[in-house]
Amino acid sequence: MTALAPGSTIGIMGGGQLGRMLSLAAAQLGLKCHIYSDVPGGACDVAAASTIGPYEDVDKVRAFAASVDVVTYEFENVPLQAAAAAEAVAPVRPGPKALAVAQDRLEEKTFISALGIPVAPFAAVDSSSAFETALATIGHAGILKTRRLGYDGKGQVRIRSAAELAPAFDALQRAPSVLEGLVPFAYEVSVLVVRAVSGEVRFYDIPLNTHKDGILDTSTVPSPLPAAHATRATDIAGAIAAALDYVGVLGVEMFYLPDAPEPLVVNEIAPRVHNSGHWTMDACLVSQFENHIRAVADWPLGPTGRHADVTMTNLIGDDAARWHAFAAEPNAAVHLYGKPEPRPGRKMGHVNRLRKRS
Amino acid sequence: MTALAPGSTIGIMGGGQLGRMLSLAAAQLGLKCHIYSDVPGGACDVAAASTIGPYEDVDKVRAFAASVDVVTYEFENVPLQAAAAAEAVAPVRPGPKALAVAQDRLEEKTFISALGIPVAPFAAVDSSSAFETALATIGHAGILKTRRLGYDGKGQVRIRSAAELAPAFDALQRAPSVLEGLVPFAYEVSVLVVRAVSGEVRFYDIPLNTHKDGILDTSTVPSPLPAAHATRATDIAGAIAAALDYVGVLGVEMFYLPDAPEPLVVNEIAPRVHNSGHWTMDACLVSQFENHIRAVADWPLGPTGRHADVTMTNLIGDDAARWHAFAAEPNAAVHLYGKPEPRPGRKMGHVNRLRKRS
Repeated sequence: MTALAPGSTIGIMGGGQLGRMLSLAAAQLGLKCHIYSDVPGGACDVAAASTIGPYEDVDKVRAFAASVDVVTYEFENVPLQAAAAAEAVAPVRPGPKALAVAQDRLEEKTFISALGIPVAPFAAVDSSSAFETALATIGHAGILKTRRLGYDGKGQVRIRSAAELAPAFDALQRAPSVLEGLVPFAYEVSVLVVRAVSGEVRFYDIPLNTHKDGILDTSTVPSPLPAAHATRATDIAGAIAAALDYVGVLGVEMFYLPDAPEPLVVNEIAPRVHNSGHWTMDACLVSQFENHIRAVADWPLGPTGRHADVTMTNLIGDDAARWHAFAAEPNAAVHLYGKPEPRPGRKMGHVNRLRKRS
Repeated sequence: MTALAPGSTIGIMGGGQLGRMLSLAAAQLGLKCHIYSDVPGGACDVAAASTIGPYEDVDKVRAFAASVDVVTYEFENVPLQAAAAAEAVAPVRPGPKALAVAQDRLEEKTFISALGIPVAPFAAVDSSSAFETALATIGHAGILKTRRLGYDGKGQVRIRSAAELAPAFDALQRAPSVLEGLVPFAYEVSVLVVRAVSGEVRFYDIPLNTHKDGILDTSTVPSPLPAAHATRATDIAGAIAAALDYVGVLGVEMFYLPDAPEPLVVNEIAPRVHNSGHWTMDACLVSQFENHIRAVADWPLGPTGRHADVTMTNLIGDDAARWHAFAAEPNAAVHLYGKPEPRPGRKMGHVNRLRKRS
């Protein structure tokens, strides 16, 4: 496939805020979007077409894929059967391999480790018979995380002693899990890499991320990460993207341990545009959303440079009620996702606050 | 009315590229758009709802207006009866007065002159009986322009002698017209002013505009306009906006005559976002489109500051075929409007080329 001409249609699986912002970016390039989602609204409100159905409906997904020029997705839990059905009739970018790896914490950590890239110590906990080995490998303090479907701090329980492992496993409904060792990190950063069909990669500047209640709170660029370590961080993200033969934007979260022999430890990867890259919408000429669309449409990648320092702050739940105050700030851009109910923990929008470039 | 909460619906009359870019800006703020257009596609592809019908269908327009929270428009030739029908059921911003003035060159020039603001010399030519007076007022060289429905150089004929007036009037099918005297200007600039419901006004930096075949070709900021004259230009635009009790973005095109006692002469006004403001999409935190939406939704106005020097170049007709090359430029943002056929003279997109701020 060569570059998709303007007027072509990008199929996006997922109708949340990431799909919505991808659609807005595609529209700017004269590309149409067709959203496949299990609920209406959201991205569907800004797309030329939408199909509403369960992600498990392989026939519906195939018909959707047949009506578009390329398929991408905005969340990593697209069922692999659906991705395979789509791939039978249209290019799927990033490919199903990235999905398979990112959907399963055990596979993800195994894959990344095999590249020689540090991850937190981990051990599979598929049943209670695995407890002893896991504790022997990891120690008695760690985080038990379900292998699948965890996000924003969901599907994970902190354990502080060996005795807490069994109740933690019960709390996760004995779903196949991974016990992760604690990493004594100074802070978390993330690398946003965009990779083209040609294999060309470009990196945005690396944000420093902070969390509240297990959910991303802020991403700030520049981060205090020393230049040599920033280079190491982009090398790591580039190696993962290459190993996945990835196309599009990939988010790679990393813990930073300044004094460790391996100062960067990969926490997890997201095979999609990433919340910690939302600042690119206002501090860069070409945002992560546009670059993802450019990559999956096989367009030339856009510049990833940045013209301002910026802090992105997520608006979670009732935070969004203060939209009027945010809109009145002199150096802020307000982004609201059009979600009707501000439920606790729900991402309702974000604010990018710009500062002169340091 | 107070500020429209996120989730409210902006009704936009007109489904072209301006409506499309307004819709994208509204979506970022969590506002829905409902497009009223006589053709599908365009803005409808990125809006939550659309109504397709003739602008003259007053009942349809009224039903559309009843389904939204505020009505705005993207072109100045919305029939006044339609605007009045909408206004009976929803706020219309900018108000119908701006439409009435902008739709008729004679009314426009009379209105602006009455504010003490210079315009090109003009005389009404409603019939051949007006020729003699018009030529006596204007002289024997000028441009005969239809009072209504002219744009992008359409509906106008240059005359170089008294004898050319009669054939020019015939060429315009003897439509009520205005004979305008030639203004020996050095260059054209435009002021983009946004005015809030409260009466607050903000101005973008003033672009220098160049034309090709009667159509805007480029807009560049900064323009070479001296600071004192830039202040005079914004004063003029602010006075026009205030006199119209205007809400939203208003474009005011002006000729610049550096050595004249009145160096700024208003050419015409556009009661809407304006092609010469498209550079704000990439060189400003808040674009003219977002500020128009903010104004009509009674939100706080956004900043109008600029972080880069920039030249906007329109892509007319086949120009857009070079989209791939534009996308590969390192400091350019490409905007394509999703129009299927690149007809000659048709605005297909634009490119914003950024430079470090001078």
